[in-house]
Amino acid sequence: MKKQLHFDRAEFAARVTAVKQAMASRGIDILILSEPANQNYLTGYNAYSFYTPQTVIVALNHDEPIWIGRFMDRISAVMTTYLSDESIRAYPDRYVQSNLSPYDFMADVAKEMGGERATIGVEMGGYYYSARAHADLIRALPLARFVDADVLVNWIRIVKSPAEIAIMRQAGRIADAMMQRAIDIIKPGVRECDIAAAVYYQMMAGTPDCGGSYACSPPYLCIGERAIAPHAAWTDEALPASTSINLELFGNRHRYQVNLSRSIVVGNPSPKYQLLSEVVVEALNASLESVRPGRTCSELEEVFRKALARHGFEKEARLGYSIGVGFPPAVGERTASLRKGDETVLQPGMTFHMMPGLWLDTVGITITQSFAVTENGHEPLTSTPRKLFVK
Amino acid sequence: MKKQLHFDRAEFAARVTAVKQAMASRGIDILILSEPANQNYLTGYNAYSFYTPQTVIVALNHDEPIWIGRFMDRISAVMTTYLSDESIRAYPDRYVQSNLSPYDFMADVAKEMGGERATIGVEMGGYYYSARAHADLIRALPLARFVDADVLVNWIRIVKSPAEIAIMRQAGRIADAMMQRAIDIIKPGVRECDIAAAVYYQMMAGTPDCGGSYACSPPYLCIGERAIAPHAAWTDEALPASTSINLELFGNRHRYQVNLSRSIVVGNPSPKYQLLSEVVVEALNASLESVRPGRTCSELEEVFRKALARHGFEKEARLGYSIGVGFPPAVGERTASLRKGDETVLQPGMTFHMMPGLWLDTVGITITQSFAVTENGHEPLTSTPRKLFVK
Repeated sequence: MKKQLHFDRAEFAARVTAVKQAMASRGIDILILSEPANQNYLTGYNAYSFYTPQTVIVALNHDEPIWIGRFMDRISAVMTTYLSDESIRAYPDRYVQSNLSPYDFMADVAKEMGGERATIGVEMGGYYYSARAHADLIRALPLARFVDADVLVNWIRIVKSPAEIAIMRQAGRIADAMMQRAIDIIKPGVRECDIAAAVYYQMMAGTPDCGGSYACSPPYLCIGERAIAPHAAWTDEALPASTSINLELFGNRHRYQVNLSRSIVVGNPSPKYQLLSEVVVEALNASLESVRPGRTCSELEEVFRKALARHGFEKEARLGYSIGVGFPPAVGERTASLRKGDETVLQPGMTFHMMPGLWLDTVGITITQSFAVTENGHEPLTSTPRKLFVK
Repeated sequence: MKKQLHFDRAEFAARVTAVKQAMASRGIDILILSEPANQNYLTGYNAYSFYTPQTVIVALNHDEPIWIGRFMDRISAVMTTYLSDESIRAYPDRYVQSNLSPYDFMADVAKEMGGERATIGVEMGGYYYSARAHADLIRALPLARFVDADVLVNWIRIVKSPAEIAIMRQAGRIADAMMQRAIDIIKPGVRECDIAAAVYYQMMAGTPDCGGSYACSPPYLCIGERAIAPHAAWTDEALPASTSINLELFGNRHRYQVNLSRSIVVGNPSPKYQLLSEVVVEALNASLESVRPGRTCSELEEVFRKALARHGFEKEARLGYSIGVGFPPAVGERTASLRKGDETVLQPGMTFHMMPGLWLDTVGITITQSFAVTENGHEPLTSTPRKLFVK
């Protein structure tokens, strides 16, 4: 079975060490991770199998993390992680949709690692840690003390290594190719679903040297009056002779995602809409140029806000968020946001999606930029021009 | 704002009535639904917004369900549901990723509906009902009695109306088009990611009269030695001159999903592999021909198992499961399974994915059939021939 590992062993070891340090400082003996992105980060595990109970356990007294999942997915753990065989544990299929709880199986592994009376961290707000999962674990480990360790690993993930940045550059090139394809085919008469089709095609086809993967959410095609419905589904309808489109696309490479939004006008943009786009780009550029290690997220937002204010505009609450490795349903790391009051200090290797939205009544402009913080500034992760596209 | 409703008001009313009857019989006053598919079923709501807290509340003493979600998604509720304005409640963005809990907001709505001392049903095992969501709700409603109402709505969804079946036929035609496109392009030298690209393209482009939507999971491309890793990601590698592929695809129309798997051989199948495929098809056909209202899921499995046994083969545990409306991460209704011991009685309007898998060491055959139970038999929901494809 051919191994698919995208980072070397030393990098995984450094990640695990950093997590153990955070655990120790918070008095956590055993960490039970339900978030697929955190599982991937610490072990490399990559398969769409997290819809049945699946965890990675990190114990202070144990060298390797332990992956626990469904029997049929065991082979994916062999294929995509560096873990030794004894660190890959699979529960039999009789635990799936039955009276047995896979969390009993997981609790037994935790006990084996000294978890019976330990302090156990769990991800209370995670997508794949249901109310029942927590109830089952508590019942199976009645003497343990449970604490909320939500986003503990996420805060370590926030600084990307050079190897991670290299993969995010590839994801960025895929996002560029997706946007180019969308701009190429958008014209009056094209069905909305066919724009989605073209975008999805390119998401997977990627570039000649670099294929893509499914993103953490569908692309968002906010067309015409649906501009104000950011997460709505597309329809079968054909584009009219004149409309505006806000397109939010996601390139994904080895689960690392880079976001890219552009506004596209079919027909002639009104002078007011054109002006709006120029103001957004000016403020976006000003904020990007202000990126430096040592500055805070809040400061980036302030630069943007003041640049807008010079033209008499106000902006929405959040200017952006940290991005990186992710699985459905969402890429957001739930760590730093580019917003007023977020005092996270920028460090080289942090990556963000800066996504200003500016609205006039029911039409809006979204021209965004994903970037990495570098030693002395920023590196854009996509190269699509920052401008309003007109077709 | 143009309404996008795919069922008439009477059908939604009947669904709500059926849910209220089930609630009453279990002593539940108020049902707080976190599963997006159940929200869609009762209100029509369709947007990819469930990654932030979102619920639909059904109260015995209240005519309409109440949708509660994030402010920016309110407009999607206006657009895709029949709910009156006062039944659409949105929490402000200051509840998103902050110290405030959206569940406090939801608890206030529940109180308004008499929920303070009520018996409240929640979906303990749902994907979007986290341990923290439950803890927050219990804290906000300390005098209420919470009971597990997981899959209560799912068991009502299991019987589809004629209008739902009509949409699933469209989803089936999309699945057929996806499989045809995959078979067309599969040949030595094609990158795996380009097969994924073609399949995704067709998932959205659908048919000329009927566009598609994103499925509940990515398609599964189990190629060569990855045949035994059912949920693994595809790679950038080119197909070799000779290999076997198990392809699991999902057509989706208005959130209704129809599944379709086929095995495809590149090069010449071994006589043993060809024989295996013929045995699977024979047993699949025998089980399909035995479908009748009044029979049980267990009986369908038995017919299949005996047909295999005539050729000296044994099968895996589960022969299939109920399908219907769904959102990521999984389409499974978590209700009836076609397996030994499942005594669910077949009724017209039930829909299943019958998915036998038969394995010889590390190669396997997956030739499957999604179908609806009719008054006197079954109706296939896809028309791709049930056979091994050779390229």
